[in-house]
Amino acid sequence: MNETPTIHPALLPAGLADVLPPEAERQARSSEAIMDCFSAHGYQRVTPPLLEFEESLFSGSGAALAEQTFRLMDPESQRMMGLRADTTPQIGRLATSRLAAVPRPLRLAYCGQVLHVRGTQLQPERQLSQAGIELIGHDTAAADAEIILTAIAALEAVGLKDLSVDLTIPRLVPSLLDEVPAHLHPALAHALDRKDAAAVAELGGAQTTLLLSLLSSSGSASRAVPALLSADLPAAARAQAKRLAEVVSAVQTVLPGLQLTVDPVEFRGYRYHTGVSMTIFATGQQMELGRGGRYLCGDAEPATGITLYPDSIIRLAPPLALRPRLYLPHGTSPADAQNARVRGYATVPGLAPEAAPGDEARRLGCSHLLFEGVITALS
Amino acid sequence: MNETPTIHPALLPAGLADVLPPEAERQARSSEAIMDCFSAHGYQRVTPPLLEFEESLFSGSGAALAEQTFRLMDPESQRMMGLRADTTPQIGRLATSRLAAVPRPLRLAYCGQVLHVRGTQLQPERQLSQAGIELIGHDTAAADAEIILTAIAALEAVGLKDLSVDLTIPRLVPSLLDEVPAHLHPALAHALDRKDAAAVAELGGAQTTLLLSLLSSSGSASRAVPALLSADLPAAARAQAKRLAEVVSAVQTVLPGLQLTVDPVEFRGYRYHTGVSMTIFATGQQMELGRGGRYLCGDAEPATGITLYPDSIIRLAPPLALRPRLYLPHGTSPADAQNARVRGYATVPGLAPEAAPGDEARRLGCSHLLFEGVITALS
Repeated sequence: MNETPTIHPALLPAGLADVLPPEAERQARSSEAIMDCFSAHGYQRVTPPLLEFEESLFSGSGAALAEQTFRLMDPESQRMMGLRADTTPQIGRLATSRLAAVPRPLRLAYCGQVLHVRGTQLQPERQLSQAGIELIGHDTAAADAEIILTAIAALEAVGLKDLSVDLTIPRLVPSLLDEVPAHLHPALAHALDRKDAAAVAELGGAQTTLLLSLLSSSGSASRAVPALLSADLPAAARAQAKRLAEVVSAVQTVLPGLQLTVDPVEFRGYRYHTGVSMTIFATGQQMELGRGGRYLCGDAEPATGITLYPDSIIRLAPPLALRPRLYLPHGTSPADAQNARVRGYATVPGLAPEAAPGDEARRLGCSHLLFEGVITALS
Repeated sequence: MNETPTIHPALLPAGLADVLPPEAERQARSSEAIMDCFSAHGYQRVTPPLLEFEESLFSGSGAALAEQTFRLMDPESQRMMGLRADTTPQIGRLATSRLAAVPRPLRLAYCGQVLHVRGTQLQPERQLSQAGIELIGHDTAAADAEIILTAIAALEAVGLKDLSVDLTIPRLVPSLLDEVPAHLHPALAHALDRKDAAAVAELGGAQTTLLLSLLSSSGSASRAVPALLSADLPAAARAQAKRLAEVVSAVQTVLPGLQLTVDPVEFRGYRYHTGVSMTIFATGQQMELGRGGRYLCGDAEPATGITLYPDSIIRLAPPLALRPRLYLPHGTSPADAQNARVRGYATVPGLAPEAAPGDEARRLGCSHLLFEGVITALS
């Protein structure tokens, strides 16, 4: 029998990490600033548990997440539970059960951790923060636009500028492929994803002209929306395109300077979305800051929502100012200590008499020293 | 074969629950107020992951928690991981690895969720919030007292008053039982726990007199400390008693009004503690608000810390005021909406024209209405 080799006790599983000072505090504060913005926009916070039965976690929109979900046995009930891989399906469960009788539209917000069984090359992390909102019970462009505008406000609240929203209709392409043989769908999806017009022309069959026109109509909303509206779409797809145009118009009315792009053939990563969907980027950065879109809550009720990714957001946001660290020499009075905290310092008390308080302050990484009643910045 | 019966999709496993509005926001804000107080006292936040390898989770002080820890297989490494049941062992791992070279004393804070395999009758919840601090690298009464005073400050920051701290030395009784036959230890522990003097007298053997004197010396610190110091203790136990007396004196110097009790025979629930330990209650309430004490970090370095329980704290704290909800009739300008948010309202916009904005505001549970540019409280 092989012995498993001993691993270093400080080693963490791949994709799981400790967040250290000062990042951990910055991360928590940014998340709370986002949540305060959601709250100001009328979204009320709910906190579902980290674990629940797989039956409820994978019902409805949650089914798409089963393979990314850690499962474990509940010894109390002898049933399988899952560690949530996404929060939206939990909000859906709440909206259709304990909150079913609450008047619509229902505006809910959440903030917490999710866990994924496997990381990807683009996203090796397996524990991720999510801060999001859901607007349940209204199938209108006004609701779609509100979700986008609220997310932008939250990102601006943590100091991000130059944001860019990429809009899509993830069900559009799949709805056009009925006449293309099913075995060609994966290759066609891949070709559309790569924006490979030659391959689309080769695989698209009867829909080649339409798919190529959609492919060429991706880009800035001001150009893409008219192109999409003039494409020869079937009725259901046309209705979705019209909705997207209304959303663009509603967002531009409030934020005329926001960069809006439309990519009508994009559908990767939208697992349970049924209508206008969006990804938010910082302009010129590849990093996704948030993603969301329209879906059916509990398989029946119209809903839209967006999830922001605080771990990514904090990498691009200007660093939050934290309390400067003030060393209090041993014997400092409790009143002086409290006074310094009220003035915004983090107080670091000496636990034993020190010969040179300035040296001790520096040794402990303090930027300031309280000496003979006066706060001095250390050089 | 029996089919497992279908369960209601909204049913959650025992001990796991959704937190709804407005409690979820109050809970999050209370935790952040506690963390801000810890930060003001020089404790820097760290955020360890929810999952790590069992080898690291159960090393050192974590061993006591193995049976309460959910385990699952990591498909990436084919190793077992655990979902943390406590945060202190993770802080210990960090202190002895990535933070090993950071100057001592090291002051760290954390806030997050822990999960327990089974609930107890007293605590049926299996997902619990923890917000705590650890002071690592200093074995002094000043360090023990700092932990208590900082925890009290954090509880007062969320509006709690009339707090009571119960101090103990959980290793005291076990250190006295060497001369009592081992098979009597469980019954004796139970008798001490129940404060059953008759049973202690029956089981205590050579230590009966000493155990009964300790039993009778529990109570208010002003009475219990002199009694404890005058007990006929062996040298090591006497040193611990002296330390406890120093801690009481250091705490009383800063907070003379704080209710301090000492129960020298208490050791239930202190699983890895090696020195002065404490539980914080609200006076007259049975509910524990926090618990902690001295331990060995990474099996070697002196440390002390305390964990507060935000879920219990919020039940006793005065409710935090949240933003009043203001209904914005359909068509309200973005500038008016923003102005209301800046003034502290949570804005709830109408997504479609409404005949009677006041009725719609009430239907959505708003307390205020914006009408013709004026904010009015709804009756």
